[in-house]
Amino acid sequence: MQLTETLWSEAEKQTADSAFQLAYSRETNALIEQIRRQASSLTAVDDLWSLHDYLSARRHELDGKYDNRYPTLIFVFAQLLKEGWLSVEDLQGLSNEKLTKISALAKM
Amino acid sequence: MQLTETLWSEAEKQTADSAFQLAYSRETNALIEQIRRQASSLTAVDDLWSLHDYLSARRHELDGKYDNRYPTLIFVFAQLLKEGWLSVEDLQGLSNEKLTKISALAKM
Repeated sequence: MQLTETLWSEAEKQTADSAFQLAYSRETNALIEQIRRQASSLTAVDDLWSLHDYLSARRHELDGKYDNRYPTLIFVFAQLLKEGWLSVEDLQGLSNEKLTKISALAKM
Repeated sequence: MQLTETLWSEAEKQTADSAFQLAYSRETNALIEQIRRQASSLTAVDDLWSLHDYLSARRHELDGKYDNRYPTLIFVFAQLLKEGWLSVEDLQGLSNEKLTKISALAKM
């Protein structure tokens, strides 16, 4: 499967950028909601450090995952599809070839 | 001023341990309250990362500050007195010599 040399048209780049931002917004909003919930029930300092550890790990994970360079976007979208942050509908506008690759990778 | 070789009686150690725990509890409870408050108004991901940065810095600061080895406790108590996490009353039970040293350092 040829993945890294895929060309992106300008229209596809716009679709990709929007989908990328949408997924990032969904996932970070969910994280914000979770942190708000966890923080509201904080009573012990050990829980505070656990919250900090969790936030450190999630930030590191998100920094690594949301790589918006076009050669890697196929993989990024596959992961986001797999995790439920994107649906195939959110990626409409990409070529069928790209959608097929993304869907196939998401099932792995 | 001779500080590092100060001897601590068993009774003084008990006073010191209690005061140390009291200050730690006060400061971490204040931090928990602050984080709960900040988290409750989180809406943007940049604010979440700011909260994380703040928590990282405070954790690092607290880890360094709360050093309960007896040779350094005079300095630790002086700082806690200066910052308001302890009062001179909380340290009653220590020798007058130690209290004088702690109070003098707290004013620096």
